[in-house]
Amino acid sequence: MTDISAQDFHDALVAHKLIIPVGVPGAFGRGPVFEDVLRRFGDLVTEAAKNDTAEHMLFPPVIARRVFEKSDYLESFPQLAGTIFSFMGNDTQHREMMNCVHEGKPWGQYQQMTDVVLAPAACYPIYPQLTGTLPENGRLVDVQNWVFRHEPSPEPTRMQSFRIREMVRAGRPEQVADWRDMWLERGLSLLRRLGLPAEPETASDPFFGRGGRMLAANQRMQKLKFEVLVPVLSTAKQTAVCSFNYHQDHFGLLFDIKTADGQVAHTACLGFGLERVTMALFRHHGYVPAEWPAEVRKVLWP
Amino acid sequence: MTDISAQDFHDALVAHKLIIPVGVPGAFGRGPVFEDVLRRFGDLVTEAAKNDTAEHMLFPPVIARRVFEKSDYLESFPQLAGTIFSFMGNDTQHREMMNCVHEGKPWGQYQQMTDVVLAPAACYPIYPQLTGTLPENGRLVDVQNWVFRHEPSPEPTRMQSFRIREMVRAGRPEQVADWRDMWLERGLSLLRRLGLPAEPETASDPFFGRGGRMLAANQRMQKLKFEVLVPVLSTAKQTAVCSFNYHQDHFGLLFDIKTADGQVAHTACLGFGLERVTMALFRHHGYVPAEWPAEVRKVLWP
Repeated sequence: MTDISAQDFHDALVAHKLIIPVGVPGAFGRGPVFEDVLRRFGDLVTEAAKNDTAEHMLFPPVIARRVFEKSDYLESFPQLAGTIFSFMGNDTQHREMMNCVHEGKPWGQYQQMTDVVLAPAACYPIYPQLTGTLPENGRLVDVQNWVFRHEPSPEPTRMQSFRIREMVRAGRPEQVADWRDMWLERGLSLLRRLGLPAEPETASDPFFGRGGRMLAANQRMQKLKFEVLVPVLSTAKQTAVCSFNYHQDHFGLLFDIKTADGQVAHTACLGFGLERVTMALFRHHGYVPAEWPAEVRKVLWP
Repeated sequence: MTDISAQDFHDALVAHKLIIPVGVPGAFGRGPVFEDVLRRFGDLVTEAAKNDTAEHMLFPPVIARRVFEKSDYLESFPQLAGTIFSFMGNDTQHREMMNCVHEGKPWGQYQQMTDVVLAPAACYPIYPQLTGTLPENGRLVDVQNWVFRHEPSPEPTRMQSFRIREMVRAGRPEQVADWRDMWLERGLSLLRRLGLPAEPETASDPFFGRGGRMLAANQRMQKLKFEVLVPVLSTAKQTAVCSFNYHQDHFGLLFDIKTADGQVAHTACLGFGLERVTMALFRHHGYVPAEWPAEVRKVLWP
């Protein structure tokens, strides 16, 4: 695969009506062919997970601010979080705000914080659902939600708003680690069957600020985060299409989740970046699915 | 149908794992049975529309702030709009913000407005896509997006975040009016086949402030908005499950949309509130789909 610039990849996706520009980076629309591939990849994940007896849930793109404040997200990634504001004033303030809007002046001062924020990851609404004592085998939850990251970028794979298919496992440490290891294999196998040269790598999150570098180093050293990488724009700087986080007892303590034998539960999550997997497929096999290799088509259109 | 209180309806939906409380009103999760019914209703809409040759698109829950500012939404419904803020400060400001978060003090002053806002209706990202000259038959776009309304409420049918299946027709006035009239019939027939006593009604939007009452009266007088109502909580105060708006040349002028013969295009949209239709089905036929009337099951599970 030869490298491609972010702009050229973006333009090719647009030219083939796979994505639809909307005048702001990372918030583009998706065309029907893009959606068909994305949905079919999701079906393959469902198929791979069919014997796991996961509980299925779906959450809206917004979550309770209180839950968000309780998590460490704002501590670690304040620059990525999106909070939701609204107008709570009277007629006079409304007129003032509209004058600012019409004159192209800032109008944020007329907006107040609401009780909801944008979900920063698909798993955040799940942990509060696990509060209490888990059954002997722990619990496994499977969701697909829209998430928000404030990182506007011309690179199509770096979106402000996108979908993650995410699973959360809660239980005893060995239950959680075994599940994570099993899915790392499954994820690799699934992506490779689709003709993507997927490789796992120890990873770290983009922690904010001066203290962030130490947190990231610590996360790498403890091997708490793995990513599955696929070259999309470039072979040298690959794109994470799947991410595994082992939280140890972090969410168990925060949301009071206990194992059947009364210990603080461990949790781990895995998330497939559905748009990223879809873009990787278009990049590797071409922008017209009818022309993809037969062995890939057979998997997606059985 | 006997009336039910908002709280009792909420509790019944929760007891049957159809919705999942998250600690803030109108942002609840959805269980798998709820999602199955919702998806199947969407399939019926697709089936009804299959010969219309609509263009399918999908947009994320966020849209460009510039597009939003250009529309009249903030003028008419400032109280419902959700804007997205984020942290753009340094290490010191981050520490100050986190102190406020940990002490339960307001921290909105550390957040700044971004270039994206929450989509207030599923059709907003469509209009900028129609800029230019339409083909002879106009255009028809079909989307399904998450939308946000800042109206926290204990009533399950009044959500902050929900999905609308929406279609936009652009063309000459008679093309648009004919399409709207056809779908009003189709929508009624679709809902009645599902055993819902759906009735159309001239309606108006919840315009803000002192001037709002006049705008609403005007909208009613000109019959620019229709809703399809179904009793959900109460027979006296029914719930809109489908809404038709005729915008005349409003969006044509704003987004420079022209008909093939060079006139300003007219537009209309229709939206099914997917969660509301789903809730209406549970309310009318019971909380367990296996026990629904055979003639309704036959339509949804063919």
